[in-house]
Amino acid sequence: MDTAPLYRQLASHYLHAIEAGTLNAGERMPSIRVLMARHQVSLSTALQMCRHLESRGVLEARPRSGYFIRKPAKSTLTPAREPQCTTPDPAQFVGVHARVSDILTRGQAAQVHTNFSGAVGAPELYPYEALRNAAIRGLRNHPDLFGRAVPLHGDATFRSVLARRALDARINIGADEIIITQGCVEALNLALRAIAQPGDVIAVESPTFYGLLQILESLGLRALEIPTSPQTGISLEALDLAAQTYPNIKGVVVVPNLQNPLGSIMPDSHKQKLVQWCEAQQIALIEDDTYSALGNSDVPLSAIKAWDHSGNVIYCASLHKILAPGMRLGWISAGRWQARVEMLKYAQSRPNEALPQIAAADYMASSAYERHLRRLRARLREQREQMADAIASYFPAGSCLTVPDGGLALWVEMPAQRSSDAVFDAALQAGIRIAPGLMFSNLNRFDHFLRISCGQPFTRELDQAIRTLASIVERA
Amino acid sequence: MDTAPLYRQLASHYLHAIEAGTLNAGERMPSIRVLMARHQVSLSTALQMCRHLESRGVLEARPRSGYFIRKPAKSTLTPAREPQCTTPDPAQFVGVHARVSDILTRGQAAQVHTNFSGAVGAPELYPYEALRNAAIRGLRNHPDLFGRAVPLHGDATFRSVLARRALDARINIGADEIIITQGCVEALNLALRAIAQPGDVIAVESPTFYGLLQILESLGLRALEIPTSPQTGISLEALDLAAQTYPNIKGVVVVPNLQNPLGSIMPDSHKQKLVQWCEAQQIALIEDDTYSALGNSDVPLSAIKAWDHSGNVIYCASLHKILAPGMRLGWISAGRWQARVEMLKYAQSRPNEALPQIAAADYMASSAYERHLRRLRARLREQREQMADAIASYFPAGSCLTVPDGGLALWVEMPAQRSSDAVFDAALQAGIRIAPGLMFSNLNRFDHFLRISCGQPFTRELDQAIRTLASIVERA
Repeated sequence: MDTAPLYRQLASHYLHAIEAGTLNAGERMPSIRVLMARHQVSLSTALQMCRHLESRGVLEARPRSGYFIRKPAKSTLTPAREPQCTTPDPAQFVGVHARVSDILTRGQAAQVHTNFSGAVGAPELYPYEALRNAAIRGLRNHPDLFGRAVPLHGDATFRSVLARRALDARINIGADEIIITQGCVEALNLALRAIAQPGDVIAVESPTFYGLLQILESLGLRALEIPTSPQTGISLEALDLAAQTYPNIKGVVVVPNLQNPLGSIMPDSHKQKLVQWCEAQQIALIEDDTYSALGNSDVPLSAIKAWDHSGNVIYCASLHKILAPGMRLGWISAGRWQARVEMLKYAQSRPNEALPQIAAADYMASSAYERHLRRLRARLREQREQMADAIASYFPAGSCLTVPDGGLALWVEMPAQRSSDAVFDAALQAGIRIAPGLMFSNLNRFDHFLRISCGQPFTRELDQAIRTLASIVERA
Repeated sequence: MDTAPLYRQLASHYLHAIEAGTLNAGERMPSIRVLMARHQVSLSTALQMCRHLESRGVLEARPRSGYFIRKPAKSTLTPAREPQCTTPDPAQFVGVHARVSDILTRGQAAQVHTNFSGAVGAPELYPYEALRNAAIRGLRNHPDLFGRAVPLHGDATFRSVLARRALDARINIGADEIIITQGCVEALNLALRAIAQPGDVIAVESPTFYGLLQILESLGLRALEIPTSPQTGISLEALDLAAQTYPNIKGVVVVPNLQNPLGSIMPDSHKQKLVQWCEAQQIALIEDDTYSALGNSDVPLSAIKAWDHSGNVIYCASLHKILAPGMRLGWISAGRWQARVEMLKYAQSRPNEALPQIAAADYMASSAYERHLRRLRARLREQREQMADAIASYFPAGSCLTVPDGGLALWVEMPAQRSSDAVFDAALQAGIRIAPGLMFSNLNRFDHFLRISCGQPFTRELDQAIRTLASIVERA
């Protein structure tokens, strides 16, 4: 049984007709009156259906003429190029904090109507009402919760739920091997502090999310940027070359599934090879598994940790992107560094508050959680495709884009010579905020890239904003 | 009008009579029947009153004979000695983490019926119901709270409330100069990371709370322990001497008000001198103001930050001990390191969750907060005095104790040659957990001390536990 609202069922019907070529670009849609009569639906349902297809870029409204099938987006953009596998630059850090802070400050100071800068979903993508109810239940069931010291390492039930969920990613760990942290950011901090000392070299994907570069810089660690494929993730060849040039690499940090900003997914064979290579080289492997649940497929992606038999992989994850942006719930399972990470967490911030863990455990143990994830995946897929269509329609020739199989953002290559910094400023002036490519590397290698969030439901306003952005890129 | 329950009013009446000598030790209390008739109270009120006085150690029940006035505690113990002001030992760190972790693990593994080890109050000392209601209100008023990313630096209202409350401690800072942290522990981490690099020397009070020693060790900083008076706090003379011997001190960390474990309060003249001395020496001064609100007097204690005009003082505090052990709410105002601390907080754990801040702000803006603090102060004072009485009654000759003017614990010196480690183990076997003195220093200087929590309401069971502990100390 189809449980989608009537207007959505109707929309699917017409989408199929358009995809099948039954209705063609440029043709007029049946009028509202015809739709009402043909499908025995109300005026509001017929209208809602057309507006929905309009917001998805499938129809366009022409004044006094009704709705028309829109021209299909021009064929998708050229996929992003594979990186060259050369010896990496002696990257280290160049004060990315100052750069990122400057960009964030400029972004926050501006009045924007459209914010494409964050890799986070809109509130309506998340089950905040159900979580709120779970929190209220938690407060009722634990009346003296705020009067008692928080439990060491985290709430026991929550840790059990996480251990059970980890089985999906083929990780077999006990609840007592999980430490709850303040988001994945704290987990990464603890992992890096456990394996390295200031001055040490850490290999990272290039491009990578600026949060990681900031963490490395703030800990006095040096980032060694390894070329990373938009399709298959970090280049194992380049990593091996790097290790020959820099024999003192202490750790590798990767986002194997739906990398930020590329959206790449490492093939399982690469994951296994990377685990074995790191073991052989005695280099710690840190896995950031923040995005796995946001793939197109309902079949879970395997974590790198699944191939770890010696405790050399430190697994970090969070619920920030997949369940609740307003909860700071992350966790870490640190293999042979577990005791050291427990100590560092205790000394750095003590255990987390219990309430969000209680609420999240309550929700995640119910079947509603799986339903939420399926819905979230479907919506994000739709939003990514709509956004990719709009970018392909409006961006100037020479732009490249690989549409990833999941995640919250698109990584768009502008034609050469464009500066993301200049585009960022011009876009802000037009009320649009994006994340410029130069935030994602200590080098200037990605200055002609933009990361564009697909976290918000696609609307005519967003379409218009992409059109404006494209003209800024065109003129830049 | 006296709003205390009737049995408490009655108890006060008899306490006064005993203090005034109207009733003397060894005498029989009027019988329950007489009390009922004399004061026109119910059986349960009369019984409750006697049990209350019994639990406070004022009366003792003799089988089939009724209640008797107990012998007064022997005169209070000799006050703790002043430390010698010599050049400090080249303390640095000696792996206090391993020591503390070992003690904590042994403590957690044991089955105990009486836990005197934490410097934290019993849940019933805190307004957890009101906070719970405030949290539920917060969830109702912000239905999509868990769906939205948390606000940078913390909830605006909460920061305003803190800025307003800081005026009581004579600190004048704006809400935008406050960053919310995961408790005071994270605030201290950030402060130390802002001012020092691994290998640097930080001067600390000796003894000091083990949490600080763990933080220093985990950050690769070296603790230089400065003799500290149980009356007036850190010795300024000793600190000056230390600076002459170790010219590379980067910072000083002090708990000026109700130091943990000593309970000392620095006189205002010392606070001012310390601020000036640190400025002149170009040494950063970090203030931990966790306990100020727990003093005997309702007149607020001044923070060291009150004398800071150059931004050289980093102020850290939390609500953990004074409002809600179950909330991890701390904050930091970092003077001239503010921008660096903002950056470090963002890179270390991102901003805190909003809900506890919303709930705490709601409660703290009401008059209930002041009433709570007055009640908390009065109860802790009573508990400290009862505990001190019991210790004075039972501990062997040669023990020393200064009863502090506030706080959650007593710092008891056992007669020489006792080892707190041995006492800790023997006490655990008897079902009693204390904090051994050797946790409070990197040296072994305080191995003949115990820190005993006064956070729980004093009962006959606690009295018995102190008696048992005293006999363990006697035999040790």
